[in-house]
Amino acid sequence: MSAAIAALRKRVGMSRPIGVVHVDLPENDFAALFRLLEHDPHSYLSADPAAYAFAIGRSFYGPVLPAGSVSLGWSSWSVQWLSRVPMPVPDHVQAAFSRDTQVRALYAEQARSDWRRFLGERSRELCRGGRLVILSMAADEERGFGYDPLMAGMHSSLSLMREEGVISADELQNMTIPTFGRTRSEFAEPFRQGAELYECLRLEQLEIFLAEDRIWLEYERSQDAEDYARKWAAFSRASVFPTLALSLRTRQGDGRVERFMDRLEAEMASRLATSPQRMNMPLALLELRRT
Amino acid sequence: MSAAIAALRKRVGMSRPIGVVHVDLPENDFAALFRLLEHDPHSYLSADPAAYAFAIGRSFYGPVLPAGSVSLGWSSWSVQWLSRVPMPVPDHVQAAFSRDTQVRALYAEQARSDWRRFLGERSRELCRGGRLVILSMAADEERGFGYDPLMAGMHSSLSLMREEGVISADELQNMTIPTFGRTRSEFAEPFRQGAELYECLRLEQLEIFLAEDRIWLEYERSQDAEDYARKWAAFSRASVFPTLALSLRTRQGDGRVERFMDRLEAEMASRLATSPQRMNMPLALLELRRT
Repeated sequence: MSAAIAALRKRVGMSRPIGVVHVDLPENDFAALFRLLEHDPHSYLSADPAAYAFAIGRSFYGPVLPAGSVSLGWSSWSVQWLSRVPMPVPDHVQAAFSRDTQVRALYAEQARSDWRRFLGERSRELCRGGRLVILSMAADEERGFGYDPLMAGMHSSLSLMREEGVISADELQNMTIPTFGRTRSEFAEPFRQGAELYECLRLEQLEIFLAEDRIWLEYERSQDAEDYARKWAAFSRASVFPTLALSLRTRQGDGRVERFMDRLEAEMASRLATSPQRMNMPLALLELRRT
Repeated sequence: MSAAIAALRKRVGMSRPIGVVHVDLPENDFAALFRLLEHDPHSYLSADPAAYAFAIGRSFYGPVLPAGSVSLGWSSWSVQWLSRVPMPVPDHVQAAFSRDTQVRALYAEQARSDWRRFLGERSRELCRGGRLVILSMAADEERGFGYDPLMAGMHSSLSLMREEGVISADELQNMTIPTFGRTRSEFAEPFRQGAELYECLRLEQLEIFLAEDRIWLEYERSQDAEDYARKWAAFSRASVFPTLALSLRTRQGDGRVERFMDRLEAEMASRLATSPQRMNMPLALLELRRT
């Protein structure tokens, strides 16, 4: 945000107020965001006296801002999350790894309608000439979701935990990460000629690329497999364990969520340490323009 | 907010977007606010499709919104909180009950400068013709802060807890509630003729009144002293115990804050139950207009 504001300042001068609106689900820890903005000397609030920060706790699959009120949008690592779980995945926690064709079709259909819904809301909110930059998880040309060793380690760890009775069969059954890696063609679909819906939204750029695996690069240098495994397990915990834990039957204060996460993180780390591999991480970068 | 929006809708019609910006300290639980706005069928977000909710986690003793961007402001039960603790109160937790004249003078001076700071920021943020309604704790004509039985019960409970070693002398010494009940004259001071600072802000209404004590009214009906005491103790816990607990030396996970609050709430309740009294609660209602 600081980089974007600095670029805008060259055009609009120092005194024009710039409002930054952070949108996330209602459950997000907005206090952490506001503390960071206030105390970090490099935050845009600290650095720019005419910058203002706002938060909105609402799903971006509905309206979040007034029509025509946004000049520049930035959405990072979010649009791969579906608006809902279409159905539990019986043979995995991630539909992309399921052998059930009905599951995969339902998730693809949800991803298709969510993408249209997202674009519809944003095209209403952007002002004329406004732009939206999106970074998202994606699928490569072979429909590959990526993260194969990570997802295999997660699934086999959970299976072991079910066998040991740490989680029940029912709980595992309902553990689902509702993310979807769209292909280039799925991202582009609403913008095809004849797709009347987005006449006012132009796809100016669409790039699918593989992200650099920094954890792997560090492993190549250090040959420290434990460190590699610990970092990927910690990444998994931060990004998706809370979603998995939603299906646990807990009572307030019983500490079960914490124990579940500790165990799963440890299991994943021990599996990942046995044979470190470079993680395949397909990403999409899109630039849209409201005409 | 719903009532205010309904009144505005009669003037501006149903389609004009109305943004509601909730401002509180960065530490506030904004997730609870957004969950309520989303799930309560009577919330303005549920009831009004052209209403938008925003949160800002910043102190209102500095700028929070762009100049001229606010049509209607509403500040409730907040401006009695000072921007900082001028000094610990040696003989109480609330400066209004201290016999130390230096303490009382310092708190009054802080209240004076905070009030000017608050008004200065708001006069910048209000648009021309915009209005600001403020409800605040206040002092009555005899400088009375009110809540005498409550504050006496709190102070004697804390003194007992120190004697018993539940809290240390140092911790009690630093327990201070930095609220200040301004008198009518203190609220009016910046608006007096010759006070050049607020030429563009007019005080249209200033009323000091005693709030209805609903807990007392219910006691008069029920004669249930335990219920009366429990409710006032719970009110104290919610409103000021977190501030008192800031001075406790704790380690993460030691549960000390929880035990401190439980004990203080129980002590206060047992004291308050011995002789229920109507609580004196001076409040101020102000209406300001940006010219």
